[in-house]
Amino acid sequence: MAPSHAQYELLYHPGIPGRGEFIRLAFEAKGVAYTDVANEQKDGYSTVQAVCMNKGTESVDGNPPVFSSPALRIPGAGLDGQALVIAQTPNILWYLGEKLGLVPDDEGGKYHVQQVALTALDLTNETHDTHHPLAVMQYYEDQKEAALAKAKDVRENRIPKYLSYFSRVLEHNAPHGKRKFLVGSYLTYADTTVWQVLNGLLFAFPKEMEARRKEFPALFEELYPAVQEVEGIRQYLASERRLAYSSGVFRYYPELDRQ
Amino acid sequence: MAPSHAQYELLYHPGIPGRGEFIRLAFEAKGVAYTDVANEQKDGYSTVQAVCMNKGTESVDGNPPVFSSPALRIPGAGLDGQALVIAQTPNILWYLGEKLGLVPDDEGGKYHVQQVALTALDLTNETHDTHHPLAVMQYYEDQKEAALAKAKDVRENRIPKYLSYFSRVLEHNAPHGKRKFLVGSYLTYADTTVWQVLNGLLFAFPKEMEARRKEFPALFEELYPAVQEVEGIRQYLASERRLAYSSGVFRYYPELDRQ
Repeated sequence: MAPSHAQYELLYHPGIPGRGEFIRLAFEAKGVAYTDVANEQKDGYSTVQAVCMNKGTESVDGNPPVFSSPALRIPGAGLDGQALVIAQTPNILWYLGEKLGLVPDDEGGKYHVQQVALTALDLTNETHDTHHPLAVMQYYEDQKEAALAKAKDVRENRIPKYLSYFSRVLEHNAPHGKRKFLVGSYLTYADTTVWQVLNGLLFAFPKEMEARRKEFPALFEELYPAVQEVEGIRQYLASERRLAYSSGVFRYYPELDRQ
Repeated sequence: MAPSHAQYELLYHPGIPGRGEFIRLAFEAKGVAYTDVANEQKDGYSTVQAVCMNKGTESVDGNPPVFSSPALRIPGAGLDGQALVIAQTPNILWYLGEKLGLVPDDEGGKYHVQQVALTALDLTNETHDTHHPLAVMQYYEDQKEAALAKAKDVRENRIPKYLSYFSRVLEHNAPHGKRKFLVGSYLTYADTTVWQVLNGLLFAFPKEMEARRKEFPALFEELYPAVQEVEGIRQYLASERRLAYSSGVFRYYPELDRQ
């Protein structure tokens, strides 16, 4: 990566994979340079806060305000040569899918990629809610009883429903994707996004997922390793840029896992 | 509307506005014919179930499976002249935005419309979770204690945060949209989507929203009526096609409202 010449700037919290990870994986898969502003620049998080967390009527450079990070800033891509700032993870993925070649050529395929990615991001949100079911700004410890109930439902009902869906998408596309790609015949951001949520779930619910992976062998034994073996992803996962899970969307509380 | 010749088929549950409403409003705003399959066709819900709720490896006509309705079926738009089926509300809105002229011409504007719509749909999800915080398939009555806590947080912290964001987007765009449109100089699906979530919140939390509307006058006194006055929307809201809220995303439980 060559941060100082990067065309793309990722604006997100420092120190956690979080929702920024779905964006990072798109860049890393294609070996395209980007600046992870909060993690790479001195005072970078001040920039993120100024653009994504201000209470004013614009983010920066004439763009509308941002509700929440991650956001992507692309210098020169906005009106009058200013930067374009876009937010919302699936929106950023749609943008990068077109620019980085992470979508199929046909119109229907582009919508099917986004459809799968949005569903994986819904599962990400539900996973977040297992540790924060009542109030996002309150401590886990203060909503632990509800978290136990929510996690039980997500583990027992929601995770298998989502994994079944991803498995069936993979199987449907087997004639083109050989069970290595979810849509079409090469890597798309549907693959990297589903990979990331599976990876996060393996961290958050190791016992649950150990049991579930046997139910969905193609997902875990074919798609999952295929994404990890993409050269850009392989190099990224071995690098210091890949951050450890801690207090973000994917958290490990043993009591929320299958007992 | 001319259902029998409609190019577009909405596949959703019958009898409720729900998430299908975001799609209906896009069509109605532009006066474009669509078939609301479950509400208009004999045995229509069987069709919706067959396409959106089957456990197989495709929805229909060679399209990948659908995780959950709403879905949009467009006969002839898929591969080899078959139907294209796409799911996920924001994905359908992106598709229709382009086809129906509900997005600005510039690239950045299209992403900003989607950004606002995704955020309004996030608020929709959080509103759903006020009555189902622990388990989507269990009764409200069985998770009422958690619902009271969740609703309190959503009313006190989340709704004002979202309304502040929508207000600031509206203000940012005032030079172009005259506080009648959120992005650009004419109606987009950002406007119809934010209108729908505001309308749903006014139903679900009448006391809370009565207080909040005074804090965000431009949103409620300028944007909200401007959308309702769009000719297609005005006719739709006066028609029998506009369904009453009941047991969908937006529900009225007095105990969850501001006391």
